[in-house]
Amino acid sequence: MIKVALDAMGGDFAPAEAVKGAIAAVSKKDQLQVLLVGQQEVIEKELEKFSYPKEQILVVHASEVIETEEPPVNAIRKKKDSSIVVGMNLVKKKEADAFVSAGSSGAILVGGQVIVGRIKGVERPPLAPLIPTQKGVSLLIDCGANVDARPSHLVQFAKMGSIYMEHVIGMKYPRVAIVNIGAEEEKGNALVKETFPLLKACKDINFIGSIEAREIPHGQADVIVSEAFVGNVILKLYEGVGGTLIGMVKQGMMTSLRSKIGALLVKPALKETLKAFDASQYGGAPLLGLNGLVVKTHGNSKAGEICNSILQCQTFKEQGINDKIRESLQSESVKTGDAQPEQ
Amino acid sequence: MIKVALDAMGGDFAPAEAVKGAIAAVSKKDQLQVLLVGQQEVIEKELEKFSYPKEQILVVHASEVIETEEPPVNAIRKKKDSSIVVGMNLVKKKEADAFVSAGSSGAILVGGQVIVGRIKGVERPPLAPLIPTQKGVSLLIDCGANVDARPSHLVQFAKMGSIYMEHVIGMKYPRVAIVNIGAEEEKGNALVKETFPLLKACKDINFIGSIEAREIPHGQADVIVSEAFVGNVILKLYEGVGGTLIGMVKQGMMTSLRSKIGALLVKPALKETLKAFDASQYGGAPLLGLNGLVVKTHGNSKAGEICNSILQCQTFKEQGINDKIRESLQSESVKTGDAQPEQ
Repeated sequence: MIKVALDAMGGDFAPAEAVKGAIAAVSKKDQLQVLLVGQQEVIEKELEKFSYPKEQILVVHASEVIETEEPPVNAIRKKKDSSIVVGMNLVKKKEADAFVSAGSSGAILVGGQVIVGRIKGVERPPLAPLIPTQKGVSLLIDCGANVDARPSHLVQFAKMGSIYMEHVIGMKYPRVAIVNIGAEEEKGNALVKETFPLLKACKDINFIGSIEAREIPHGQADVIVSEAFVGNVILKLYEGVGGTLIGMVKQGMMTSLRSKIGALLVKPALKETLKAFDASQYGGAPLLGLNGLVVKTHGNSKAGEICNSILQCQTFKEQGINDKIRESLQSESVKTGDAQPEQ
Repeated sequence: MIKVALDAMGGDFAPAEAVKGAIAAVSKKDQLQVLLVGQQEVIEKELEKFSYPKEQILVVHASEVIETEEPPVNAIRKKKDSSIVVGMNLVKKKEADAFVSAGSSGAILVGGQVIVGRIKGVERPPLAPLIPTQKGVSLLIDCGANVDARPSHLVQFAKMGSIYMEHVIGMKYPRVAIVNIGAEEEKGNALVKETFPLLKACKDINFIGSIEAREIPHGQADVIVSEAFVGNVILKLYEGVGGTLIGMVKQGMMTSLRSKIGALLVKPALKETLKAFDASQYGGAPLLGLNGLVVKTHGNSKAGEICNSILQCQTFKEQGINDKIRESLQSESVKTGDAQPEQ
């Protein structure tokens, strides 16, 4: 039985969509239990609306809620009875295998490191969302809050990202590339230039070299390695340019009677095509390298994305991803002779 | 009379589109002379196809061509009789006010610094393309090849960008923002955190704080300050996501008979809307802070963009942008007491 703690209070549509997502997930899988974490009365009132296998959904009470605008470090320290802190403690105490939340990104990143803690040898846990491409999805690693990374961090990101893409998403020999401003090896800033030969020397990944940002939407690599500042810019610009263009297309179609009629005719086909440019079917963004798993879903995620994120946790556990990460880093520390204390 | 040297050999459609662009520009402005730089015979053969005011278009022979794949530093050093080196030397010798090229970005950036040279006090000349937004255009500064910038560089970028947007594009009190991964002042990497208070203290710009990448396409700032690695990623991802989405929309419209009929009906309206999301009407990307002006146009630019780039050089000169940059940096060096030798 795999147990996933779900933040029932996080995100724009909590608790309704969280509850619906939990019910959808358990209706698909038998060997799955969802622990809905949050204000018991509110959650139970929502649960009453549905019929579901009672033994697969439990409520764990947490009286407080961390708001998205709260400073994360403070929020994690002070709101001990918040859904995020309670949920993460379930993972820490091995009472849950994973924690899923659509709540405050900052609090989730801080809590993941401080409460759940890192796997021995992991220098930094990266946040790794899937982004849509022409060909499917790519993993963008790291988009977290740890900026000013070192080359050794990026090498670990490449390894963890490869393991995730191969065993959770099911992609054989995922192509790993580093974000750069040109295709040639001598291009880049100091960080990229230092990291490039390390990735090239790394035997357990399929490193294909640099990737220019222009090529990312074309799906030219499966694991896209970057430090978090650049990763964050890529992730957010993706959403911004995509949203703006789709908005302009819709607006353009409404400018005349002729175009309005045309819009009615193209709408179904267009909807189908643009659905391909949406990564939410794969679930949320995992925070990798933790003793357990934390998944951040979009703040505006609906039941579908939440359900997919829960199922993603199940695959993560079944595939023994953390054991694979431990092995991969151990082989490295044996080689280099250094090891880091578990946090 | 303003003189603009134009690389007749650079870009995918040289020399035909360069020649057409030059003719279009001089037909719009009397006080303008275009010096077509490149292989004389080839250019003259192209010119023969048109009638135009002979005294406004001259040919300056240059026997060599720098290819886009050549290592820039080498190319500039060795190909002394290339259209880029000859064109830039015209600016250096004050025989032209500006140089426009659709050729190798690398060679243009290197040549700008090495041949044309920086204005006294300018630490780094930034490449500053205009990018389309929902509301018009924003200046993205810097997208050049100088990575690993310092805070003082970014402050100069902000000043030069403001002057350009106000006096060349005609935007009053342009809003200046720094690219960041959150809106709060304490967010960011080391560079952004150090630069933020300097921009805040800068009296001659209208600094509005941080901008997240998601907000860039919404036009939330007019001058978007960033070091070149991040700027480059933004510029190229903009093109990549935009191109991919438009491609998918087109493809989606062709999937059924129904959608094909719809496509015919929406096409004119859509074309009109998407034209608004195109910055080429403003010309190419200026390399700012030089003793003169160098403008890089897209490698695939047609006559329209080349013509606009030439006209942009005229506005640049008429508005005395370089004098304004000198004044702005002088007031700074008076304050801080430091000055740099002219290169």
